[in-house]
Amino acid sequence: MPDAMEGREAVELLARTRAVITPHLRATVESLPTSMRRVALDHFGWERTDGAPPGARAGTAIRPALVFAAATAFGGRPEAAVRAAAAVELLHTFTLLHDDVIDADATRHHRPTARTAFGIPDAVVVGDALLAFAPRLIAEDGHPAAAAASARLAACVVELRAGRQADRAFERRAPHDVSLDACLAMAMAKTGALLGCACALGALYAGAGEEEVAAMDAFGREAGLAFQLIDDLIGIWGDPGHAGEPAGADLAAHGKSLPVVAALGSGTPAAVELAALYEGAMGEGAVREAADAVERAGGRDWAQLHAADRMARAVDHLAGAVPDLTAAGELLALAEFVTRRSG
Amino acid sequence: MPDAMEGREAVELLARTRAVITPHLRATVESLPTSMRRVALDHFGWERTDGAPPGARAGTAIRPALVFAAATAFGGRPEAAVRAAAAVELLHTFTLLHDDVIDADATRHHRPTARTAFGIPDAVVVGDALLAFAPRLIAEDGHPAAAAASARLAACVVELRAGRQADRAFERRAPHDVSLDACLAMAMAKTGALLGCACALGALYAGAGEEEVAAMDAFGREAGLAFQLIDDLIGIWGDPGHAGEPAGADLAAHGKSLPVVAALGSGTPAAVELAALYEGAMGEGAVREAADAVERAGGRDWAQLHAADRMARAVDHLAGAVPDLTAAGELLALAEFVTRRSG
Repeated sequence: MPDAMEGREAVELLARTRAVITPHLRATVESLPTSMRRVALDHFGWERTDGAPPGARAGTAIRPALVFAAATAFGGRPEAAVRAAAAVELLHTFTLLHDDVIDADATRHHRPTARTAFGIPDAVVVGDALLAFAPRLIAEDGHPAAAAASARLAACVVELRAGRQADRAFERRAPHDVSLDACLAMAMAKTGALLGCACALGALYAGAGEEEVAAMDAFGREAGLAFQLIDDLIGIWGDPGHAGEPAGADLAAHGKSLPVVAALGSGTPAAVELAALYEGAMGEGAVREAADAVERAGGRDWAQLHAADRMARAVDHLAGAVPDLTAAGELLALAEFVTRRSG
Repeated sequence: MPDAMEGREAVELLARTRAVITPHLRATVESLPTSMRRVALDHFGWERTDGAPPGARAGTAIRPALVFAAATAFGGRPEAAVRAAAAVELLHTFTLLHDDVIDADATRHHRPTARTAFGIPDAVVVGDALLAFAPRLIAEDGHPAAAAASARLAACVVELRAGRQADRAFERRAPHDVSLDACLAMAMAKTGALLGCACALGALYAGAGEEEVAAMDAFGREAGLAFQLIDDLIGIWGDPGHAGEPAGADLAAHGKSLPVVAALGSGTPAAVELAALYEGAMGEGAVREAADAVERAGGRDWAQLHAADRMARAVDHLAGAVPDLTAAGELLALAEFVTRRSG
């Protein structure tokens, strides 16, 4: 199948996913008390408080799409997993609200964050409410897999938050004080855990066995790490598909993203340059020089190769759990899609 | 039974409760990744990071004690509800961690808050983790009431956070811009909801019917409102049983606590004085004058009478659900205990 076709399959899957889960997300938001509802409506882009016309925020819906695709791969009906898929998206949304508080971020996708538009208290409490609703959505569907799904969801939250905490702690450490292993573990927790959880939930809802569920979790985690590597590259050099997205903010914050840490540990002269830049404040010029040093130190190439390696591992896990890979076509299309962005 | 005996019964109940739930709370904390565990161990007072000798934080354990007492009132075995009781205490702990972020509080019970000792990111993520674990504890016990209990827990979190959000929003409003009704609704959400949830969970775990569970929720809510009224009085005039606790911080923050709002709406000359004081910054002198004005405007007497009225309503709900009040002795002792503090 040509690449363009595969990309289209993923785009269509994501659009179908958004159409199916949006009513559940909206019902959850509508059930919130007024003071919270306005914050959540604004965050999702359904009702803007800044006077701009409403327009749904371009959430990729990749996580709930993985739930559906995993259910399909094991012969399950995606419709049975719709609440689990919505719960996973609620968790993702909760992390965005709290991450903006943790990082004191003013904007996300060119719009003010809830933290900026409404303040820290509103962003914290609405995040709390969405986190509380995620297991409730699952508990409500009365599916035999609900209890196991809830336990996975809770463990996933803990891992996600530990990953976020490590990410934040790394920013304050000296350049050589973050090992590549620690950085990979952080990325696996911060990003891989929820993609793994999404795939595991889909398998659980299709009645897959324990080993298959574990393999799907591993597939999602490896694909998630590939996703994070590409995201880190975009964070430094921008997304060719989205010209104008600001790049370099992570470098400016002394972020220890994977390409940076790989570059720092390369033993090259460029690594020494990069470490020296990271000792000081990072203005616009320093950010450009740092990006250049990461590239010359091999951080960019390493990240691209390592993303491909992680995708290969993901496919290995998938092939172990779903021997007939044609059933796993949607999963492959989605994994391919999220790691294709760097062109 | 003489008052001193009743007070002793409650104290013993609370001590037994702490002994029973602490292993579950510790197991939850021990299961956290290291970076989160140290924050939680410090918050609970089990391992201090400030060099001070460890000593369990004097958590009253009133909420889990209500779970056990409610189970007992309906002939249930309290042991069957131990995970539900621990879950309720985890929720309470999560609210403390996030409230300190929301209010930017530096100390709690004379000790630095997690926000101060570890920073906003750590306080946010550890609160998130405890919130995620609460429904998991309940899901794990496989009790037939677990699903209903989880749904109540999630609804309770939303209400608690909406109450906290309102509390915070009220601080910024003009003195006459917060009605007593709005303030009572805020206190019911902020404090009553979790006490009501605790009582409802105990009844659920004892196999009580829907109406009985609703009545127990109402009992806990009314007792919780009485609790909040007494807490507001202590916040202004201090706790005679704990000389040295700083009072007046809420007045300094222009807090719209129940005695203050009742005083502001009293139509007395003292209400005008109080409103004028609240127009400006609240130094030490202004806080003293404001406390005096609240008293002269009748806010202190109103709060004490209204707390007694709420306790009477609580007992009415209880009597409707548990006709033989001797079975409800523990619930009455606990409710009496938490509203006795003002002497």
